[in-house]
Amino acid sequence: MIRHRPQAPEVVTRRWSAAGWSQAEDRLAAEEPLQVLLDGEPLSVLMRTPGHDVELALGLLWAERVVPERRLVREVLVSAESGEHEPALPVRADLLESNQVDVRVGPGARRPARRSFLSTSACGVCGAATVEALALDFAPLPPGPRLDPDLVSRLPARLRSEQRLFDQTGGLHAAGLFDAAGTLVTLREDIGRHNAVDKVVGRALLDGRLPLPGHVLVVSGRGGYEIVQKAVAAGIPIVAAVGAPSSLAVATARRFRLTLAGFVRDGRLNVYADAGRLSE
Amino acid sequence: MIRHRPQAPEVVTRRWSAAGWSQAEDRLAAEEPLQVLLDGEPLSVLMRTPGHDVELALGLLWAERVVPERRLVREVLVSAESGEHEPALPVRADLLESNQVDVRVGPGARRPARRSFLSTSACGVCGAATVEALALDFAPLPPGPRLDPDLVSRLPARLRSEQRLFDQTGGLHAAGLFDAAGTLVTLREDIGRHNAVDKVVGRALLDGRLPLPGHVLVVSGRGGYEIVQKAVAAGIPIVAAVGAPSSLAVATARRFRLTLAGFVRDGRLNVYADAGRLSE
Repeated sequence: MIRHRPQAPEVVTRRWSAAGWSQAEDRLAAEEPLQVLLDGEPLSVLMRTPGHDVELALGLLWAERVVPERRLVREVLVSAESGEHEPALPVRADLLESNQVDVRVGPGARRPARRSFLSTSACGVCGAATVEALALDFAPLPPGPRLDPDLVSRLPARLRSEQRLFDQTGGLHAAGLFDAAGTLVTLREDIGRHNAVDKVVGRALLDGRLPLPGHVLVVSGRGGYEIVQKAVAAGIPIVAAVGAPSSLAVATARRFRLTLAGFVRDGRLNVYADAGRLSE
Repeated sequence: MIRHRPQAPEVVTRRWSAAGWSQAEDRLAAEEPLQVLLDGEPLSVLMRTPGHDVELALGLLWAERVVPERRLVREVLVSAESGEHEPALPVRADLLESNQVDVRVGPGARRPARRSFLSTSACGVCGAATVEALALDFAPLPPGPRLDPDLVSRLPARLRSEQRLFDQTGGLHAAGLFDAAGTLVTLREDIGRHNAVDKVVGRALLDGRLPLPGHVLVVSGRGGYEIVQKAVAAGIPIVAAVGAPSSLAVATARRFRLTLAGFVRDGRLNVYADAGRLSE
């Protein structure tokens, strides 16, 4: 992919410490809005780190169940500036302004009312209802694989060692897809935790590899509801978070028989749902 | 405030370490959806930690410029279960289902099309346009106050020492409002970084104290665009983030003459915009 914009722009900063003030150059995590369109209609705007925008849009539409099958995606329109192209998909790169991506879908795609949430009427929004609404779209995950907990505990360090942009900026989240042998398949970095996961899933969609049984999703931050929801949608049976899970993430993982580990560090982890995928 | 729901529910977890598997009890950060209504019309649903829902809704509406004046808020409807009440505002607590909050406003409130973003037409969404759109609503911040950088560098540790829920769960963001003497005015914790800031600003709105010159907003995570945007909206001239700022946060802070510090730790900090409010 050609990059026309830096993902870690430089800036001059003033540094203060016990030694007093000094001037320094710093690299920042790039943040820009992205407008996602569906068949030319504005769907959502999100703040993200530029790059892999096609993956991001497709991963988001997959999680939201707008695009439940790869073949429904007919083409994607992006700006010339984005420099994005995908060998397996028609990506037309001259029709939009910068920071826009338009996914053109065929019949069978589900037009969302920004699914589940934004236009929900007064029906009693509660955690249990949220989990059950998700169950209308997705089935519980099948058993397997079975991994050594020691292997899983070492994945966040592997993820971290591959985070090129974090090294430059000190401020990016990462999501990594690993196979059951602990090999890194896809790593994406973004200022938004959820964006990084959407990009990983969008990559798998583009490669025709969804769903993803036999894989582990590792996230650099906490394990909240939306992380687990996106893993369920992608059929990823194990989520390992460096940080703490939330109550709704745990309830969702239990409902869908997803293995949810938190506080995952070298040589230790806590399992909050479905410990059966980790060996004794 | 009476709490009917725990903010840190207990859960049984399986712990793995070099010593093998064991069972333990853990407290989770509570996460539930909240549906925000405006005059009975669904406006948005967000995932948040229950508690201070009235503050959250009002802080959000303030940042989005739906409620530009305190007096426009006529009453707030909540569920009986929420147990929320506010001495200075009519809060009717029996009309809604749980996890809903309905802000009733008078003429003069601006009906949003989910401001700035969700329904933007294809007008070229870019960082510069985002910052300039914000400038239609808000003026640059006036000069002052002038603080000792050593004082500012010590605020995150003070914030952390007051985080009751983080201590229990290991997984909550915090936002703290401090005055120019370094005294903590308001602390809110939430699974969402932006929610914590909205709750702090909502509290100030309820107390009739907006805008907030002479104050510092301290956030436990990174300093992204939306954190700076909410500070600008609340008239808070200094933002100190424990983590890194983003490119758009820096651009926004510079445009609005807000002092933005990142990587703030005891005895050190980096200033990315308007260092003039920190003494030499």
